[in-house]
Amino acid sequence: MSNHKEKPVVLAEQVQTFLANLEPLTRKVFLSLTPPSPLDNRADVDQVRQMLERRYDSVSVPLSLMSRIPGLCRSADWQITATLADTNQGWKLIDLEPGDTTKEQFGLAIDIGTTTVVVYLVDLCDGTVLRHAADYNDQITLGEDILSRIRHAGELGGLVRLQKAVLDTLNRLIRLLFPLPMRTGKITAAAIGANTTMIHLLLSLDPASICRAPYTPVVNNPGLILAGEIGLEIHPLAPVYCLPSIGSYLGGDVIGGILVSGMHKQPEISLFVDIGTNGEIVMGNEDWLVACAGAAGPALEGGVTTFGMRAEPGAVDHVSIDPETGQVQYTTVADMPARGICGSGLVDTLAELFLDGIIDRNAHFQKGREAYVVVPAKETALGEDIVVTQIDINNFMATKGAVNAATDLLMENVGCAWQKISHFYAAGAFGQYLPIESAIAIGLYPDLPRSAIVRLGNSSGEAARQVLLSRTKRLEAEAIAAKVTYFELNANPSFMEKFSGSKFLPHTDLDRYPSVKRRLQTHT
Amino acid sequence: MSNHKEKPVVLAEQVQTFLANLEPLTRKVFLSLTPPSPLDNRADVDQVRQMLERRYDSVSVPLSLMSRIPGLCRSADWQITATLADTNQGWKLIDLEPGDTTKEQFGLAIDIGTTTVVVYLVDLCDGTVLRHAADYNDQITLGEDILSRIRHAGELGGLVRLQKAVLDTLNRLIRLLFPLPMRTGKITAAAIGANTTMIHLLLSLDPASICRAPYTPVVNNPGLILAGEIGLEIHPLAPVYCLPSIGSYLGGDVIGGILVSGMHKQPEISLFVDIGTNGEIVMGNEDWLVACAGAAGPALEGGVTTFGMRAEPGAVDHVSIDPETGQVQYTTVADMPARGICGSGLVDTLAELFLDGIIDRNAHFQKGREAYVVVPAKETALGEDIVVTQIDINNFMATKGAVNAATDLLMENVGCAWQKISHFYAAGAFGQYLPIESAIAIGLYPDLPRSAIVRLGNSSGEAARQVLLSRTKRLEAEAIAAKVTYFELNANPSFMEKFSGSKFLPHTDLDRYPSVKRRLQTHT
Repeated sequence: MSNHKEKPVVLAEQVQTFLANLEPLTRKVFLSLTPPSPLDNRADVDQVRQMLERRYDSVSVPLSLMSRIPGLCRSADWQITATLADTNQGWKLIDLEPGDTTKEQFGLAIDIGTTTVVVYLVDLCDGTVLRHAADYNDQITLGEDILSRIRHAGELGGLVRLQKAVLDTLNRLIRLLFPLPMRTGKITAAAIGANTTMIHLLLSLDPASICRAPYTPVVNNPGLILAGEIGLEIHPLAPVYCLPSIGSYLGGDVIGGILVSGMHKQPEISLFVDIGTNGEIVMGNEDWLVACAGAAGPALEGGVTTFGMRAEPGAVDHVSIDPETGQVQYTTVADMPARGICGSGLVDTLAELFLDGIIDRNAHFQKGREAYVVVPAKETALGEDIVVTQIDINNFMATKGAVNAATDLLMENVGCAWQKISHFYAAGAFGQYLPIESAIAIGLYPDLPRSAIVRLGNSSGEAARQVLLSRTKRLEAEAIAAKVTYFELNANPSFMEKFSGSKFLPHTDLDRYPSVKRRLQTHT
Repeated sequence: MSNHKEKPVVLAEQVQTFLANLEPLTRKVFLSLTPPSPLDNRADVDQVRQMLERRYDSVSVPLSLMSRIPGLCRSADWQITATLADTNQGWKLIDLEPGDTTKEQFGLAIDIGTTTVVVYLVDLCDGTVLRHAADYNDQITLGEDILSRIRHAGELGGLVRLQKAVLDTLNRLIRLLFPLPMRTGKITAAAIGANTTMIHLLLSLDPASICRAPYTPVVNNPGLILAGEIGLEIHPLAPVYCLPSIGSYLGGDVIGGILVSGMHKQPEISLFVDIGTNGEIVMGNEDWLVACAGAAGPALEGGVTTFGMRAEPGAVDHVSIDPETGQVQYTTVADMPARGICGSGLVDTLAELFLDGIIDRNAHFQKGREAYVVVPAKETALGEDIVVTQIDINNFMATKGAVNAATDLLMENVGCAWQKISHFYAAGAFGQYLPIESAIAIGLYPDLPRSAIVRLGNSSGEAARQVLLSRTKRLEAEAIAAKVTYFELNANPSFMEKFSGSKFLPHTDLDRYPSVKRRLQTHT
């Protein structure tokens, strides 16, 4: 169990407009009803519905609630609070409570990653995140990556096991966020950002076609699901909204990233990049959006590098090498003795190795060296040197090369030059922790004016929060999904060519990295 | 098990306009889908929804169907038929079948009476009734009348037993109408006309408040229920529409009667009367509608008269007495030896006794007689005389008196004279079988031009058929329910006064019955 320290990032100007228009997926309405009398003997259910329909257009009352209304009205002295769900097809009554409970409205914003699941408990009254918690996705034990999970889903009982695993993870996190004596049934709405496969597994939909030509998912836009239908342990009638996906390889997490960046509303062209196990790149503006996706390699995920680890206590997260003395300075998460290197530590190390000439522009160690000691054995918790090897560097270069090649190809195809890029949005872990200067030095980020580089943090989780809180944002997400053109990388012959040519630090074309060029001149 | 012979009556001019605008509660749509390709790799569910949304505004797809779509599309070679339910809050996909099954669309129109339940199997393609079947309501064993059932519902497990009883009745009739190998799951919609208590018991809603001041039901307009929610054994997602009621004593069966009569659309004032165990009277036109209701006494139901029985084989259904010889002529249902007298037989007998002077205007036997032999013992299947007694006549007079008093009071209150009544609509058994002249002779029907007397038959069942087939009719029914003003008889002191004064044949004021006055003069 790791409680991430990050807060979901929201761009400052968005927060303002956003909170002014709070339209959460569920709303509470306090009703002061009239006790029936000979002069007003309307049926109880009808009176409740009529009062609600004064403010909300059309309200349906499920049979399961009808029978509770007469007793509740009388025991609560005709002062009750109704919870309504916004179903896109009118309003639906989902809960009734005695008294005025309009100050207590809770929802969940959920980011289901292939590796990590994050749940944010959101106050639906003001939109703030009250608490959040994260954990590994229990599905990992059934398959490390997306392809192995899709394979597992095809085995007997596999789909059921995978659905149960992610629900176990979610329900564990929910209980953690909403401790007794509060009932998790008080949570009346949820929104989810996740890739297409994660959504299929959550809904127990067969993901087989996702990795088989022509790569059609069962569903891209599932609409609203009831929590009780899938076993999410909040209010059983709570609507669960999944950010729509565009296809097998562009999920609701990416749509969410675009939504949070706001690039789809700007006249200037922006670039959005999210790199995890898979990488997704989106380019565009208010008029058009193109996207591509592909396996990026897990170089930044901590699972492949020899001493790679997640950003947990003891992870080396910042590294600098004194160009004069060659002395390494580093920090670790929670200041614990070093146990490994996380993504940001790796990016720092590679940048310093490159800037100090310890590796060359081809990313090869000079002077026959095969590894670099970042932390000597005596300072570690492991009792052995923590090193970065040539193989680690090669893995990283493959990831970086794929990203560079894909980005270049996309730009070439839409005929857009780097000079035209107004913003570079970096999403996910890729955008949250990486040291900007180091990421630029090794060509992971473009060498743009620093004000143009925007790190979105967990934009999938933040997008979930936004659609949880705003009908406008839900419609916006669906409009984005309808607008994105998917650009198939694998079908493109020049991708491999560009990929092979991208194995330089920071980039094949050094002139695209003027600030790095200057630093290299300073160092040498 | 008795298969009623009646067909639901529809006024001729209505049928025409009606079938031109068929808008059933569920509709089938044949979809010829495009197999996914690299150029069109939309998700299967999204493609289905998008095709449906070309014709139907907003369509929601339940999770339970999503998982079936990919397999069905492929096995049916992308030729499938979707069934959509009209939920008033947009359309909802409820079923998918391989191939084109748009020619097979079935729904049920149901009339749940306190005593008798009738189910009509309706072809949703053209609106016709394919078959119908009727049976006693199994709830009778738990309580003869409405009050005893409400009392039973208050006992431990009583509500569950009552719900089960009516569902057992309905499901038995459904299986009878839709024999194997057809699955009753092919029936995708139902509409129900019933009194308020019957609807409460069907939905398992506590009816206690119906008979307790201020007489507020749990619900008057339950909206759409899913068949699966209550255990009606048709398609589990089939929408079930209940005709709305106005209050505890004016149910959807009466709203249905008004709907079928069309009195709410006419400029002239009409009178609608339905007499069963309870009696309901509605008066009004396109501008206003007033109604009253009350216990009518079961005089016409066959349960109270000494030799009373339902219109089953052996029931005396028509009677005439030769004024010269005093000779009785009668017919029986199915020409079987007489076993008792049904409502129409009783009305005929009373009219003949009155016209022949065997009973006087006070409805008392002349010359100390205490009973009248309708069928002598030797002609019966019982081996005893079938008679009508003074007590039977008194029971009838109580019913008739209540109806007359209520009608007069209603007319007095709205300031309407008999001359203004353009139509008299007689609903239910009261309107289906009674011999018109006899019913007028004893004051049960008003003495209007015969063309003004319209017998609606089972208007509750016919109304159910209409709302099953037409969204316009559903809205019309709801508009009627909103328009009717309920007139409280019990609270009115002059009711008892009028009731006491109504114990004359045909009416206290003989001048209101000119044709009867003439017949009396002819007879004497």
